[in-house]
Amino acid sequence: MGKFLDRIKTPDDIKKLNISELNSLCIEIRSFLVDSVSKTGGHLASNLGVVELTVAILSVFDMDTDKIVFDVGHQSYVYKMLTGRMDKFNTLRKFNGLSGFPKRCESKYDFFNTGHSSTSISAALGLARARDLNGTNENILALFGDGALTGGMMYEAMNDAGHSKTPLILILNDNNMSIAKNVGSVARHLQKLRLSPAYFKSKEATERFLDKVPHLGAPVSNGLRKAKRTMRKLVNPTSMFDDLGFTYLGPVDGHNIEALISCLEYAKAQKKPVIIHALTKKGKGYFHAENNPEKFHGIAPFDKISGMTGAHIKTYSDCFGESLLSLARDNEKIVAITGAMPSGTGLIKFSKMYKDRFFDVGIAEQHGVTMAAGLAAGGYIPVIPLYSSFLQRAYDQTLHDVCLQNLHVVFPIDRAGIVGADGETHQGVYDISYLCHMPNMTLLSPSSFEELNQMLDFAINRHSGPVAIRYPRGSTQLDTENVEFEFGKAQLIKQGSDISIIATGRMANTAMAVSKKLDQNGINAEVMLLPTIKPLDSASIIATALKTKRVITIEDNVKIGGMGQMIADVYAEHNVLCSLKIYAFPDMPITHGTVAELDKLYGIDENTIFNEVTNAKSKT
Amino acid sequence: MGKFLDRIKTPDDIKKLNISELNSLCIEIRSFLVDSVSKTGGHLASNLGVVELTVAILSVFDMDTDKIVFDVGHQSYVYKMLTGRMDKFNTLRKFNGLSGFPKRCESKYDFFNTGHSSTSISAALGLARARDLNGTNENILALFGDGALTGGMMYEAMNDAGHSKTPLILILNDNNMSIAKNVGSVARHLQKLRLSPAYFKSKEATERFLDKVPHLGAPVSNGLRKAKRTMRKLVNPTSMFDDLGFTYLGPVDGHNIEALISCLEYAKAQKKPVIIHALTKKGKGYFHAENNPEKFHGIAPFDKISGMTGAHIKTYSDCFGESLLSLARDNEKIVAITGAMPSGTGLIKFSKMYKDRFFDVGIAEQHGVTMAAGLAAGGYIPVIPLYSSFLQRAYDQTLHDVCLQNLHVVFPIDRAGIVGADGETHQGVYDISYLCHMPNMTLLSPSSFEELNQMLDFAINRHSGPVAIRYPRGSTQLDTENVEFEFGKAQLIKQGSDISIIATGRMANTAMAVSKKLDQNGINAEVMLLPTIKPLDSASIIATALKTKRVITIEDNVKIGGMGQMIADVYAEHNVLCSLKIYAFPDMPITHGTVAELDKLYGIDENTIFNEVTNAKSKT
Repeated sequence: MGKFLDRIKTPDDIKKLNISELNSLCIEIRSFLVDSVSKTGGHLASNLGVVELTVAILSVFDMDTDKIVFDVGHQSYVYKMLTGRMDKFNTLRKFNGLSGFPKRCESKYDFFNTGHSSTSISAALGLARARDLNGTNENILALFGDGALTGGMMYEAMNDAGHSKTPLILILNDNNMSIAKNVGSVARHLQKLRLSPAYFKSKEATERFLDKVPHLGAPVSNGLRKAKRTMRKLVNPTSMFDDLGFTYLGPVDGHNIEALISCLEYAKAQKKPVIIHALTKKGKGYFHAENNPEKFHGIAPFDKISGMTGAHIKTYSDCFGESLLSLARDNEKIVAITGAMPSGTGLIKFSKMYKDRFFDVGIAEQHGVTMAAGLAAGGYIPVIPLYSSFLQRAYDQTLHDVCLQNLHVVFPIDRAGIVGADGETHQGVYDISYLCHMPNMTLLSPSSFEELNQMLDFAINRHSGPVAIRYPRGSTQLDTENVEFEFGKAQLIKQGSDISIIATGRMANTAMAVSKKLDQNGINAEVMLLPTIKPLDSASIIATALKTKRVITIEDNVKIGGMGQMIADVYAEHNVLCSLKIYAFPDMPITHGTVAELDKLYGIDENTIFNEVTNAKSKT
Repeated sequence: MGKFLDRIKTPDDIKKLNISELNSLCIEIRSFLVDSVSKTGGHLASNLGVVELTVAILSVFDMDTDKIVFDVGHQSYVYKMLTGRMDKFNTLRKFNGLSGFPKRCESKYDFFNTGHSSTSISAALGLARARDLNGTNENILALFGDGALTGGMMYEAMNDAGHSKTPLILILNDNNMSIAKNVGSVARHLQKLRLSPAYFKSKEATERFLDKVPHLGAPVSNGLRKAKRTMRKLVNPTSMFDDLGFTYLGPVDGHNIEALISCLEYAKAQKKPVIIHALTKKGKGYFHAENNPEKFHGIAPFDKISGMTGAHIKTYSDCFGESLLSLARDNEKIVAITGAMPSGTGLIKFSKMYKDRFFDVGIAEQHGVTMAAGLAAGGYIPVIPLYSSFLQRAYDQTLHDVCLQNLHVVFPIDRAGIVGADGETHQGVYDISYLCHMPNMTLLSPSSFEELNQMLDFAINRHSGPVAIRYPRGSTQLDTENVEFEFGKAQLIKQGSDISIIATGRMANTAMAVSKKLDQNGINAEVMLLPTIKPLDSASIIATALKTKRVITIEDNVKIGGMGQMIADVYAEHNVLCSLKIYAFPDMPITHGTVAELDKLYGIDENTIFNEVTNAKSKT
């Protein structure tokens, strides 16, 4: 691994290294990270940006008593390496391997699971209040990027934490990025702060400071108190964080270990709510990642030398982006909104071609959806593509601001179903359940790019009211001839007489595969797709059940509140006597792994379904 | 009504009155409001606080082109009176009557429906962007209280709006209250701003200002530009709103019409994002409401002279509060969290008796839930009572931060089911649907106070992992002898052989009433209660179906994703052949009215159910 990296068996070992050795350690960490992630894929650029920060944190704090919460958590790789998990890095984000995010079940050094943005201060404040009630005095830290500050939860938490006066150390890892370039007034405010003098920046300043501040956990002295008074004057008096009740420290060079250690020591001695503003470079130290941090934010395995990944295969996100671009040419009422994901959702070309009709609201799904409702009330047709797991953040806004008013907002739901390596916090397996009970909501799900095109055209040009279109990560398409999308109508893509298989979206392929196997085993299966999940085509659903008397349904959503249960209701409501078996994800967190691995693990893959159908058949 | 009030037929008529007449108008409005709300009940204190503000807004702006969004919307009564709805005030919040909130279907002067807090800036920004795309130049306003500023959406919206530079006028109605006393750093920051000099306060200052600013919509002149330069210096340079990209104007006396008009005129001329900080008194002008603004926030009909309402009848909220207090004596790990509703949720006594274990986070359900998760990860047992409609705001935090980590957080869900007069934005008819599909979540629902006591004890002392307890507004209890709560077990409270009625929570009474009527008509009904909605007691649910072959289910939740559909799945899964009919609220916004009126309207009252059961019976 490396001379110094090999020495780090427990986090405490870091404290045995001097500054020069810590700097060498950072070089080794970067080398390891680039090598390891080039093989497994993962979040690279953000981790390269926090190498010194993580090393400095572990130099100053004792993770056997102190606690840290990583916002989002994809920047926790260095921390994982240094807290005893380096030998498992070849399993990163793989089935049964290390998670790409903090997981309490993985290590005693992970204190709070994360995955979605902007939760860290809330969680840290909860841990701090538990500490206060316990009467102990461990340090509680939250590490977050400037992108997280576009999320409203952070202000809710700072409003509470700043007022509470309880000791809490926030570390703002400011690289002027979230995934893409950061947006909004706060980013501008940070830009202003960035230009103010950095008090922990130079070796000399650091040494002057160190003269007054006892190093590494020594008790508060008169000297320190004097230093605190001096420092207070240096604190930028106009930062918004001061208005929120925090002591602002910074900016500090986030790649200068010495400066970071001084700053963290100072923060530790404050015993009140403090925010450290550290300036970092996303992708630091790896040429390709520095030059293209967005590409290297989350990346597939790549070639270390060239920085190249495998050839890009067209995805549903690409398809959506192209389709929207084409529709926007003919309908000038179309506007697009993104929550800091112009690239991930396929909106890059739109954002360039229709600057005035494109709005990046930051990692602010709540605001984005209600702002969309405002645009719709103003006569426009907002299209707001969000990942299924992130639209969760705007549940209330979708229900309260869009659906109750029956406003024409289009929700392309990307990464619906299994996302794979990102795991439980990112699986899009709840959206059927959380959207279908919203009044006025329509929910569609394509099984091919062509169908997505047709659905988007329908949702924008031939529909009014809220409409969501859920489509999976990646490129899986139904490989039969194209079927024309007809709103509200089931598609009978294969006739049969012994059993009906009703499926939607990505599971169309599974349904066809199962039906072929059944046919080969003398069970004549009918396959019906539901491109419209809500409203359900009750007539067709009933017709197929009356024909075969035996129905199975397949969806890549959890079972509770999903398509299958709505179908069960249709049969109950209409007194249809048939056997019904629902295939969907079970009622538990859905772990990380490939789509095939997870389908199999949770029993919704073609083999499991085929076996169960034939076994049940043989029993009757 | 009053001499001046009678003259206001359209909002434009206000512009014909001079300052002295406007002041008289305000007196008449207050008199009308107190009289009217004393008869209907409703939100009084907040409306008394915005009388001058509303009159000033309608004096300066033209609501036939300009637009305003009311945050939450309960402070829109004065606006409704002055925009042609005064003659309907006797129907306020009644079935088929005026809504207590802005409703686009009610008036062309209502531009965006509200009900939940902190949405106004997002909606207004959407309307402003629609305006910009249209190339028109109407003014867009958002009016919100200081309580709304504890909600994170406001910062997401300001981050976007401040940066956009598009003209937008925010009016902060600061009375240092949300419903109760406001909390947090922002409130403290506002307190500081409140003490800074008010530039629009005196008549003389106003006149000096008016000398330079053309009145009522005149074009921008050199004089105005000069005035703008002067004003810029007066603007408080340290407000957090400036950091967010807004021009801060204020503080201004929110009960001085002249000052307000000057300030609004100035804001209107700015043509950029502006925030006006108006200081008001909640309950202004009515002795009882000024002295007890929390009581008069939302109030039942009352006696105008004494300010007294009818005798208080013990509610589920009271019961929860008492029960928690008693449990907290014996278990010091219990902590309580409120989202600005200590009174509404029954936590007042707890907040006084256990100051250190009580946290009011503001109108910040997202932060509250994740902070609770942090406390749970720190070894405490957080209890966070929220109204069903407001827990919606923390859907993602409940799923992502609590359930995926299987943390022991207790969610008492107040106002589950029909809330009555507050109407569609406040109906708690979605919680079964949005909670049951969350992994690790347990959902309970009591039918009596005693059962709530038992459930709370169970949830806190004999359970681990997330657990929610949903109970209705008010006092409806099942009037049979007490049944012992047993976790996960259905309660067979009446044996029968012809039909099974499965109900939960408040609907237990309906189930018993239907069964009595059926018995009287020769149909022997079995009644089974499900105090545990998740996990379902499948065995009992199956047993009763096998016995009677005919099941109906009753729940005060929407049908989709609700208890009935989960039961339909149980029968499908186990091949139970029986007829099943689900009684629940339909897939549409649920309007305002009494519980009895709405149960009947939507067909889940005892008569409708009885008639349908007997009609279906006579047909077979």
